[in-house]
Amino acid sequence: MSERTLVLLRHGESVWNAENLFTGWVDVPLSAKGEVEARRSGELLRDARLLPDVVHTSVLRRAISTANIALDTADRHWIPVRRDWRLNERHYGALQGKNKKQTLETYGEEQFMLWRRSYDVPPPPIEDGSEFSQDGDPRYADLGADLPRTECLKDVVARLLPYWDAAIVPDLAAGRTVLVAAHGNSLRALVKHLDGVSDEAIAKLNIPTGIPLRYDLDENFRPTNPGGTYLDPEAAAEAIQAVANQGR
Amino acid sequence: MSERTLVLLRHGESVWNAENLFTGWVDVPLSAKGEVEARRSGELLRDARLLPDVVHTSVLRRAISTANIALDTADRHWIPVRRDWRLNERHYGALQGKNKKQTLETYGEEQFMLWRRSYDVPPPPIEDGSEFSQDGDPRYADLGADLPRTECLKDVVARLLPYWDAAIVPDLAAGRTVLVAAHGNSLRALVKHLDGVSDEAIAKLNIPTGIPLRYDLDENFRPTNPGGTYLDPEAAAEAIQAVANQGR
Repeated sequence: MSERTLVLLRHGESVWNAENLFTGWVDVPLSAKGEVEARRSGELLRDARLLPDVVHTSVLRRAISTANIALDTADRHWIPVRRDWRLNERHYGALQGKNKKQTLETYGEEQFMLWRRSYDVPPPPIEDGSEFSQDGDPRYADLGADLPRTECLKDVVARLLPYWDAAIVPDLAAGRTVLVAAHGNSLRALVKHLDGVSDEAIAKLNIPTGIPLRYDLDENFRPTNPGGTYLDPEAAAEAIQAVANQGR
Repeated sequence: MSERTLVLLRHGESVWNAENLFTGWVDVPLSAKGEVEARRSGELLRDARLLPDVVHTSVLRRAISTANIALDTADRHWIPVRRDWRLNERHYGALQGKNKKQTLETYGEEQFMLWRRSYDVPPPPIEDGSEFSQDGDPRYADLGADLPRTECLKDVVARLLPYWDAAIVPDLAAGRTVLVAAHGNSLRALVKHLDGVSDEAIAKLNIPTGIPLRYDLDENFRPTNPGGTYLDPEAAAEAIQAVANQGR
C-alpha cells in the first residue's frame, strides 16, 4: 500500500434523503438507516485495517455524525479532527427544501437534469429570508457576503480545491492516512480533480453512501489506482445504480 | 458575562462507572444513562445560550462521546475540535479494572482513601502486559517510555498544566468560549489551578457528571466567579453528594 492514503466517505442517508428532498446546505441529521450505514463503514475500515490518522469533515451534521460513528466503530475516535465549510455539499439554491420528484414534474426532465447534473449551470439563487437559507448561521459568519446562494459543481470545485491544497495535501505529505467525510457533490468535485475527469464525464459519476473509497497517491498526489478502490465493491456497484435512479 | 468564558464538562456515566470499577485510562464507552446525561448537558448549554466556539477533549471515548452528543444537542457540532491525552482521566495504575467496593474491603478504608483522594500517593503501577494497560495503544505512540503506569492527582496537575497554557489559554485569549470535556480528576486538577485550591482541600472537591460548570476569567485567566457556576446548581449539589458516597 502507498504511504499516501486517502479515504473518501460519503455520509449515510439523511432524513431528507429519505424524504427525497434537495438538501444542500440545510443541516439535517442522519436517518436511522444512515446511522447503520455509518457504523458499517467503520466496520469496513476496521476489517481492512485502513485506519485514519486524521479526519476532515464538512460543517454539516450528517457528515460529522457519519465520521463520529465510523471512527468510533473503528476505534479511531481519538484522532485529530478538522472541519471546513469548503467540504460542504453543493448549495442547491432555490431548490433547497424542495421535493425532487415534484421538481422533476414541475420543470420537466431537461431542466431537472440540467440543475442536477450539468457542470456549470446553478439552480436559481435561494431567496433572502428563506427558511432554508444559511443567512445568520454563526458557522458561516466569516464568509460574509461570500456566503453562497446557489452553486453548480464547477463552483464546488473552485471552493474545494484551496482546502485540498492548504489542509488535506499537507496531512498526506506528512504520511498520514486521511479520511474525508463529506457529501455527494463535494466528493465528486474531489474525484474529478484526482482522476482528471472531464466536465462532461463527471455528470455520470455517482459516489455511493457509506462505502469507504480508498485512493493510493503518488508523490504528486495523483492516484496510482485511478478511480479508487471501494472497500465493498459489490455494494458500491449496486448503490451507484440506485443513486442514478433518484428522482424517478 | 466575561469575554473569557470557560465551560468544564465531566463525562456522563460510563459502563464501568455503572459497574463500580476503577477505569482510569481504560477506554470504556458511555452507558445509556451517560448518553442521556450528555444530551441533558447540551440542553443546558443551549438553554443558557452558552455556546462554545471550540471544544477540547481527552483522547478517551467517554469524554469524546459526551462532547459529540452535547454539542450536537446545542447545535454546535461544527465547531473546531482539539484532543489531547493530557486531558485524560488519572491513570489508576494497578487498580484499573478493579471493583471499588472489593478494593475497599481488601485494603481497608485508610489505604482506599489514600489511593482515591490523597494528593501525592499514586496506586501501585500497572503490571506489564496487563489487559488494562495502554502498552501499544497507537494514540499514545508519541509518549514512548513516558506513558504513565500510575498517577496521583499531583501527576495529573503536572501533565495537564502545559496543555492549559499552550492550547486552552490561547483559545480563551482569542475571545473564544471554550468547552473542556474531560474527566473527574483532570477537571479537579484544572479547578485546583483556577481556584488555587490547597493540596489538602482538593481531596474533598467533587465535580458532578453532565452538568456544565462555567468560569468567567479575568485578564490573568483567574475566575471572577471563584468556584465557577453550575448551569443546574440544584442537580450539581445532589450529584456532588452522590459522588462522595461512591465505593460505600
